[in-house]
Amino acid sequence: MPYLPLEKHLPGITGLLEYRKDTAEPIRKLTQTLLRGASTLTEAEREMIAAIVSHNNECRFCTTAHTATADLLLGDRETMQKIKQDIETAPVSEKMKALLIIARQVQKGGKNVTEALVNRAKDAGATDVEIHDTVLIAALFCLYNRYVDGLATVAPNDPAFYETLAKRLVDNGYNRLPGGYDQLKNRIFS
Amino acid sequence: MPYLPLEKHLPGITGLLEYRKDTAEPIRKLTQTLLRGASTLTEAEREMIAAIVSHNNECRFCTTAHTATADLLLGDRETMQKIKQDIETAPVSEKMKALLIIARQVQKGGKNVTEALVNRAKDAGATDVEIHDTVLIAALFCLYNRYVDGLATVAPNDPAFYETLAKRLVDNGYNRLPGGYDQLKNRIFS
Repeated sequence: MPYLPLEKHLPGITGLLEYRKDTAEPIRKLTQTLLRGASTLTEAEREMIAAIVSHNNECRFCTTAHTATADLLLGDRETMQKIKQDIETAPVSEKMKALLIIARQVQKGGKNVTEALVNRAKDAGATDVEIHDTVLIAALFCLYNRYVDGLATVAPNDPAFYETLAKRLVDNGYNRLPGGYDQLKNRIFS
Repeated sequence: MPYLPLEKHLPGITGLLEYRKDTAEPIRKLTQTLLRGASTLTEAEREMIAAIVSHNNECRFCTTAHTATADLLLGDRETMQKIKQDIETAPVSEKMKALLIIARQVQKGGKNVTEALVNRAKDAGATDVEIHDTVLIAALFCLYNRYVDGLATVAPNDPAFYETLAKRLVDNGYNRLPGGYDQLKNRIFS
Protein backbone atom coordinates (compact mmCIF):
# COMPACT_ATOMS: atom_id res chain seq x y z
CA MET A 1 0.00 0.00 0.00
CA PRO A 2 1.54 3.33 -1.04
CA TYR A 3 1.87 5.96 1.71
CA LEU A 4 0.10 8.52 -0.50
CA PRO A 5 -3.31 8.42 -2.22
CA LEU A 6 -1.99 7.47 -5.67
CA GLU A 7 -4.17 6.35 -8.57
CA LYS A 8 -4.61 2.59 -8.35
CA HIS A 9 -3.94 1.97 -12.05
CA LEU A 10 -0.57 3.76 -11.86
CA PRO A 11 2.06 1.60 -10.09
CA GLY A 12 5.68 2.48 -9.28
CA ILE A 13 6.97 5.82 -10.54
CA THR A 14 3.97 6.37 -12.83
CA GLY A 15 1.60 7.30 -9.97
CA LEU A 16 4.17 9.61 -8.40
CA LEU A 17 4.74 11.47 -11.66
CA GLU A 18 1.01 12.14 -11.86
CA TYR A 19 0.72 13.00 -8.14
CA ARG A 20 2.83 16.15 -8.34
CA LYS A 21 3.19 17.22 -11.96
CA ASP A 22 5.27 20.34 -11.33
CA THR A 23 8.09 18.29 -9.83
CA ALA A 24 7.56 15.49 -12.36
CA GLU A 25 8.16 17.79 -15.32
CA PRO A 26 11.86 18.56 -14.59
CA ILE A 27 12.46 14.93 -13.53
CA ARG A 28 11.09 13.80 -16.90
CA LYS A 29 13.11 16.43 -18.75
CA LEU A 30 16.36 15.47 -17.01
CA THR A 31 15.75 11.79 -17.79
CA GLN A 32 14.82 12.44 -21.41
CA THR A 33 17.95 14.56 -21.92
CA LEU A 34 20.28 12.03 -20.28
CA LEU A 35 18.77 8.78 -21.59
CA ARG A 36 17.36 9.83 -24.96
CA GLY A 37 19.23 13.02 -25.88
CA ALA A 38 22.23 13.20 -28.21
CA SER A 39 25.03 11.00 -26.82
CA THR A 40 27.92 8.81 -27.91
CA LEU A 41 26.43 6.17 -25.61
CA THR A 42 23.59 4.18 -27.17
CA GLU A 43 20.13 4.24 -25.60
CA ALA A 44 20.66 0.59 -24.64
CA GLU A 45 23.93 1.44 -22.87
CA ARG A 46 22.27 4.23 -20.92
CA GLU A 47 19.38 1.94 -19.93
CA MET A 48 21.98 -0.62 -18.72
CA ILE A 49 23.29 2.01 -16.29
CA ALA A 50 19.74 2.74 -15.07
CA ALA A 51 19.05 -0.99 -14.63
CA ILE A 52 22.26 -1.91 -12.80
CA VAL A 53 21.88 0.98 -10.33
CA SER A 54 18.22 0.09 -9.69
CA HIS A 55 19.21 -3.55 -9.26
CA ASN A 56 21.87 -2.67 -6.69
CA ASN A 57 19.39 -0.42 -4.87
CA GLU A 58 17.01 -3.42 -4.85
CA CYS A 59 14.20 -1.36 -6.37
CA ARG A 60 12.06 -4.02 -8.02
CA PHE A 61 9.85 -1.67 -10.07
CA CYS A 62 12.74 0.29 -11.61
CA THR A 63 14.96 -2.76 -12.10
CA THR A 64 12.27 -4.69 -13.94
CA ALA A 65 11.20 -1.67 -16.03
CA HIS A 66 14.71 -0.70 -17.14
CA THR A 67 15.84 -4.27 -17.65
CA ALA A 68 12.86 -4.77 -19.97
CA THR A 69 13.76 -1.52 -21.75
CA ALA A 70 17.43 -2.49 -22.18
CA ASP A 71 16.36 -5.96 -23.37
CA LEU A 72 14.01 -4.46 -25.96
CA LEU A 73 16.68 -2.06 -27.25
CA LEU A 74 19.31 -4.82 -27.34
CA GLY A 75 17.00 -7.42 -28.83
CA ASP A 76 18.04 -10.03 -26.28
CA ARG A 77 17.36 -11.01 -22.68
CA GLU A 78 20.80 -12.32 -21.76
CA THR A 79 23.06 -9.26 -21.76
CA MET A 80 21.37 -7.46 -18.89
CA GLN A 81 21.11 -10.69 -16.91
CA LYS A 82 24.84 -11.27 -17.30
CA ILE A 83 25.65 -7.68 -16.31
CA LYS A 84 23.70 -8.23 -13.08
CA GLN A 85 25.63 -11.44 -12.42
CA ASP A 86 29.12 -10.08 -13.14
CA ILE A 87 30.04 -6.92 -15.02
CA GLU A 88 33.60 -8.07 -15.74
CA THR A 89 32.52 -11.16 -17.73
CA ALA A 90 29.36 -9.66 -19.31
CA PRO A 91 29.20 -9.42 -23.13
CA VAL A 92 29.70 -5.64 -23.33
CA SER A 93 32.64 -3.50 -24.47
CA GLU A 94 35.58 -2.75 -22.18
CA LYS A 95 34.40 0.86 -22.09
CA MET A 96 30.94 -0.17 -20.93
CA LYS A 97 32.38 -2.47 -18.27
CA ALA A 98 34.37 0.46 -16.88
CA LEU A 99 31.34 2.78 -17.00
CA LEU A 100 29.02 0.21 -15.39
CA ILE A 101 31.55 -0.24 -12.58
CA ILE A 102 31.61 3.54 -12.06
CA ALA A 103 27.78 3.50 -11.93
CA ARG A 104 27.86 0.70 -9.36
CA GLN A 105 30.25 2.73 -7.22
CA VAL A 106 28.05 5.84 -7.46
CA GLN A 107 25.17 3.72 -6.16
CA LYS A 108 27.19 2.95 -3.03
CA GLY A 109 28.12 6.62 -2.59
CA GLY A 110 29.99 9.24 -4.59
CA LYS A 111 33.30 8.84 -2.78
CA ASN A 112 33.55 5.24 -4.03
CA VAL A 113 34.38 6.42 -7.55
CA THR A 114 38.18 6.29 -7.54
CA GLU A 115 40.64 7.94 -9.92
CA ALA A 116 41.79 4.44 -10.95
CA LEU A 117 38.25 3.54 -12.09
CA VAL A 118 37.94 6.80 -14.03
CA ASN A 119 41.34 6.19 -15.65
CA ARG A 120 40.27 2.68 -16.60
CA ALA A 121 37.24 4.14 -18.37
CA LYS A 122 39.36 6.79 -20.13
CA ASP A 123 41.93 4.17 -21.19
CA ALA A 124 39.06 2.14 -22.67
CA GLY A 125 38.04 5.17 -24.74
CA ALA A 126 35.39 6.83 -22.56
CA THR A 127 35.08 10.59 -23.06
CA ASP A 128 34.70 13.13 -20.28
CA VAL A 129 31.04 13.61 -21.17
CA GLU A 130 30.42 9.86 -21.09
CA ILE A 131 31.94 9.70 -17.60
CA HIS A 132 29.90 12.74 -16.54
CA ASP A 133 26.70 11.22 -17.90
CA THR A 134 27.37 7.83 -16.32
CA VAL A 135 27.74 9.44 -12.89
CA LEU A 136 24.66 11.63 -13.35
CA ILE A 137 22.48 8.79 -14.69
CA ALA A 138 23.56 6.62 -11.75
CA ALA A 139 22.82 9.47 -9.32
CA LEU A 140 19.43 10.09 -10.98
CA PHE A 141 18.42 6.47 -10.51
CA CYS A 142 19.46 6.71 -6.86
CA LEU A 143 16.82 9.45 -6.72
CA TYR A 144 14.19 7.41 -8.60
CA ASN A 145 14.75 4.24 -6.56
CA ARG A 146 14.38 6.13 -3.28
CA TYR A 147 11.32 8.03 -4.51
CA VAL A 148 9.59 4.82 -5.68
CA ASP A 149 10.39 2.71 -2.60
CA GLY A 150 10.39 5.52 -0.01
CA LEU A 151 6.69 6.05 -0.66
CA ALA A 152 5.96 2.30 -0.85
CA THR A 153 4.57 2.32 -4.37
CA VAL A 154 3.31 -0.94 -5.85
CA ALA A 155 5.41 -3.07 -8.25
CA PRO A 156 3.18 -5.27 -10.44
CA ASN A 157 4.12 -8.94 -10.73
CA ASP A 158 2.93 -9.39 -14.31
CA PRO A 159 5.89 -9.23 -16.77
CA ALA A 160 3.47 -7.97 -19.43
CA PHE A 161 3.15 -4.71 -17.51
CA TYR A 162 6.88 -4.02 -17.76
CA GLU A 163 7.01 -5.04 -21.42
CA THR A 164 4.27 -2.52 -22.18
CA LEU A 165 6.08 0.15 -20.17
CA ALA A 166 9.39 -0.69 -21.91
CA LYS A 167 7.75 -0.31 -25.32
CA ARG A 168 6.46 3.11 -24.27
CA LEU A 169 9.95 4.15 -23.10
CA VAL A 170 11.52 2.93 -26.35
CA ASP A 171 8.87 4.48 -28.62
CA ASN A 172 8.12 7.69 -26.74
CA GLY A 173 10.89 8.25 -24.22
CA TYR A 174 10.36 9.93 -20.88
CA ASN A 175 8.30 12.96 -21.80
CA ARG A 176 4.74 13.08 -20.52
CA LEU A 177 2.26 11.91 -23.14
CA PRO A 178 -1.00 13.81 -23.61
CA GLY A 179 -3.32 12.44 -20.91
CA GLY A 180 -0.41 11.12 -18.87
CA TYR A 181 -0.56 7.37 -18.60
CA ASP A 182 -4.31 7.24 -19.34
CA GLN A 183 -3.71 5.98 -22.85
CA LEU A 184 -1.65 3.11 -21.45
CA LYS A 185 -4.35 2.16 -18.98
CA ASN A 186 -6.19 -0.31 -21.16
CA ARG A 187 -3.05 -1.72 -22.67
CA ILE A 188 -1.38 -2.23 -19.31
CA PHE A 189 -4.36 -3.79 -17.64
CA SER A 190 -5.99 -5.54 -20.56
CA MET B 1 41.30 17.23 -8.45
CA PRO B 2 37.96 16.82 -10.25
CA TYR B 3 37.75 14.02 -12.82
CA LEU B 4 36.44 16.48 -15.43
CA PRO B 5 37.91 19.74 -16.74
CA LEU B 6 35.75 22.05 -14.60
CA GLU B 7 36.33 25.77 -14.20
CA LYS B 8 38.74 26.33 -11.32
CA HIS B 9 36.73 29.14 -9.75
CA LEU B 10 33.59 26.94 -9.55
CA PRO B 11 33.89 24.35 -6.75
CA GLY B 12 31.40 21.63 -5.78
CA ILE B 13 28.11 21.55 -7.67
CA THR B 14 28.66 24.99 -9.22
CA GLY B 15 31.22 23.75 -11.77
CA LEU B 16 29.07 20.75 -12.69
CA LEU B 17 26.01 22.93 -13.32
CA GLU B 18 28.07 25.00 -15.76
CA TYR B 19 29.71 21.93 -17.36
CA ARG B 20 26.52 20.55 -18.86
CA LYS B 21 23.85 23.24 -18.86
CA ASP B 22 21.11 21.21 -20.54
CA THR B 23 21.07 18.73 -17.66
CA ALA B 24 21.63 21.48 -15.10
CA GLU B 25 18.48 23.33 -16.12
CA PRO B 26 15.95 20.66 -15.02
CA ILE B 27 18.03 19.92 -11.88
CA ARG B 28 17.82 23.61 -10.98
CA LYS B 29 14.11 23.74 -11.77
CA LEU B 30 13.32 20.68 -9.65
CA THR B 31 15.31 22.13 -6.74
CA GLN B 32 13.73 25.56 -7.06
CA THR B 33 10.22 24.04 -7.11
CA LEU B 34 10.84 21.76 -4.13
CA LEU B 35 12.92 24.09 -1.94
CA ARG B 36 11.59 27.53 -2.86
CA GLY B 37 8.16 26.89 -4.39
CA ALA B 38 4.83 27.21 -2.55
CA SER B 39 4.84 24.84 0.44
CA THR B 40 3.51 24.50 3.96
CA LEU B 41 7.09 23.72 4.97
CA THR B 42 9.26 26.79 5.47
CA GLU B 43 12.36 27.31 3.34
CA ALA B 44 14.44 26.70 6.49
CA GLU B 45 12.68 23.37 7.10
CA ARG B 46 13.33 22.26 3.52
CA GLU B 47 17.00 23.28 3.78
CA MET B 48 17.22 21.23 7.01
CA ILE B 49 16.19 18.15 5.00
CA ALA B 50 18.82 18.93 2.34
CA ALA B 51 21.49 19.42 5.01
CA ILE B 52 20.76 16.28 7.07
CA VAL B 53 20.75 14.05 3.98
CA SER B 54 24.01 15.58 2.71
CA HIS B 55 25.51 15.17 6.19
CA ASN B 56 24.58 11.49 6.32
CA ASN B 57 25.98 11.00 2.80
CA GLU B 58 29.19 12.66 4.09
CA CYS B 59 29.19 15.16 1.22
CA ARG B 60 31.21 18.03 2.66
CA PHE B 61 30.39 20.58 -0.03
CA CYS B 62 26.61 20.08 0.11
CA THR B 63 26.48 19.71 3.90
CA THR B 64 28.38 22.93 4.50
CA ALA B 65 26.43 24.85 1.85
CA HIS B 66 22.96 23.77 3.04
CA THR B 67 23.86 24.08 6.72
CA ALA B 68 24.93 27.67 6.05
CA THR B 69 21.68 28.26 4.14
CA ALA B 70 19.51 26.77 6.92
CA ASP B 71 21.47 28.80 9.51
CA LEU B 72 20.92 32.00 7.56
CA LEU B 73 17.18 31.35 7.16
CA LEU B 74 16.83 30.39 10.84
CA GLY B 75 19.01 33.23 12.13
CA ASP B 76 21.01 30.87 14.35
CA ARG B 77 23.85 28.37 14.10
CA GLU B 78 22.70 25.93 16.79
CA THR B 79 19.55 24.31 15.39
CA MET B 80 21.20 22.58 12.44
CA GLN B 81 24.12 21.52 14.62
CA LYS B 82 21.72 19.91 17.11
CA ILE B 83 19.77 18.16 14.32
CA LYS B 84 23.02 16.58 13.15
CA GLN B 85 23.78 15.42 16.70
CA ASP B 86 20.33 14.00 17.49
CA ILE B 87 17.07 14.66 15.67
CA GLU B 88 14.92 13.52 18.63
CA THR B 89 16.27 16.15 21.03
CA ALA B 90 16.77 18.95 18.46
CA PRO B 91 14.80 22.21 18.94
CA VAL B 92 12.35 21.62 16.06
CA SER B 93 8.65 20.71 16.01
CA GLU B 94 7.45 17.14 16.45
CA LYS B 95 6.35 17.21 12.80
CA MET B 96 9.84 18.22 11.65
CA LYS B 97 11.45 15.54 13.80
CA ALA B 98 9.27 12.93 12.11
CA LEU B 99 10.00 14.33 8.63
CA LEU B 100 13.77 14.56 9.27
CA ILE B 101 13.75 10.93 10.39
CA ILE B 102 11.95 9.97 7.16
CA ALA B 103 14.60 11.90 5.21
CA ARG B 104 17.36 10.10 7.09
CA GLN B 105 15.79 6.76 6.19
CA VAL B 106 15.48 7.72 2.51
CA GLN B 107 19.21 8.46 2.56
CA LYS B 108 19.88 4.87 3.62
CA GLY B 109 17.53 3.52 0.94
CA GLY B 110 13.83 3.84 0.11
CA LYS B 111 12.75 0.62 1.80
CA ASN B 112 13.86 2.01 5.17
CA VAL B 113 10.86 4.35 5.30
CA THR B 114 8.39 2.32 7.36
CA GLU B 115 4.66 2.79 7.71
CA ALA B 116 5.21 3.49 11.43
CA LEU B 117 7.48 6.46 10.58
CA VAL B 118 4.96 7.81 8.09
CA ASN B 119 2.16 7.43 10.65
CA ARG B 120 4.26 9.26 13.23
CA ALA B 121 4.62 12.16 10.79
CA LYS B 122 0.87 12.14 10.01
CA ASP B 123 0.02 12.02 13.73
CA ALA B 124 2.25 15.06 14.25
CA GLY B 125 0.26 16.93 11.59
CA ALA B 126 2.27 16.29 8.41
CA THR B 127 0.22 16.39 5.22
CA ASP B 128 0.54 13.93 2.34
CA VAL B 129 2.30 16.55 0.24
CA GLU B 130 4.76 17.32 3.04
CA ILE B 131 5.60 13.62 3.26
CA HIS B 132 5.91 13.41 -0.53
CA ASP B 133 8.16 16.45 -0.64
CA THR B 134 10.33 15.22 2.23
CA VAL B 135 10.98 11.95 0.40
CA LEU B 136 11.65 13.68 -2.91
CA ILE B 137 13.95 16.35 -1.40
CA ALA B 138 15.89 13.60 0.39
CA ALA B 139 16.11 11.58 -2.84
CA LEU B 140 17.20 14.69 -4.78
CA PHE B 141 20.06 15.32 -2.34
CA CYS B 142 21.12 11.68 -2.73
CA LEU B 143 21.49 12.61 -6.42
CA TYR B 144 23.37 15.85 -5.69
CA ASN B 145 25.74 14.28 -3.15
CA ARG B 146 26.68 11.48 -5.56
CA TYR B 147 27.09 13.90 -8.48
CA VAL B 148 29.36 16.20 -6.46
CA ASP B 149 31.53 13.49 -4.88
CA GLY B 150 31.37 10.95 -7.73
CA LEU B 151 33.23 13.42 -9.95
CA ALA B 152 35.62 14.45 -7.16
CA THR B 153 34.75 18.13 -7.18
CA VAL B 154 36.57 20.46 -4.81
CA ALA B 155 35.06 21.62 -1.50
CA PRO B 156 36.60 24.93 -0.37
CA ASN B 157 37.78 25.15 3.24
CA ASP B 158 36.99 28.86 3.72
CA PRO B 159 33.66 29.30 5.60
CA ALA B 160 33.25 32.66 3.82
CA PHE B 161 32.71 30.80 0.54
CA TYR B 162 29.70 28.93 1.94
CA GLU B 163 28.29 32.06 3.58
CA THR B 164 28.39 33.82 0.21
CA LEU B 165 26.79 30.82 -1.49
CA ALA B 166 24.11 30.61 1.24
CA LYS B 167 23.26 34.30 0.75
CA ARG B 168 22.86 33.65 -2.98
CA LEU B 169 20.55 30.67 -2.29
CA VAL B 170 18.47 32.73 0.17
CA ASP B 171 18.27 35.83 -2.03
CA ASN B 172 18.03 34.23 -5.48
CA GLY B 173 17.16 30.57 -5.01
CA TYR B 174 18.33 27.83 -7.34
CA ASN B 175 17.65 29.31 -10.76
CA ARG B 176 20.63 30.13 -12.93
CA LEU B 177 21.57 33.80 -12.70
CA PRO B 178 22.52 35.67 -15.88
CA GLY B 179 26.19 34.84 -16.46
CA GLY B 180 25.99 31.74 -14.27
CA TYR B 181 28.24 32.11 -11.25
CA ASP B 182 30.45 34.73 -12.92
CA GLN B 183 28.91 37.54 -10.95
CA LEU B 184 29.72 35.69 -7.71
CA LYS B 185 33.34 35.17 -8.73
CA ASN B 186 34.77 38.35 -7.23
CA ARG B 187 32.59 38.16 -4.16
CA ILE B 188 33.49 34.54 -3.44
CA PHE B 189 37.19 34.98 -4.03
CA SER B 190 37.72 38.52 -2.81
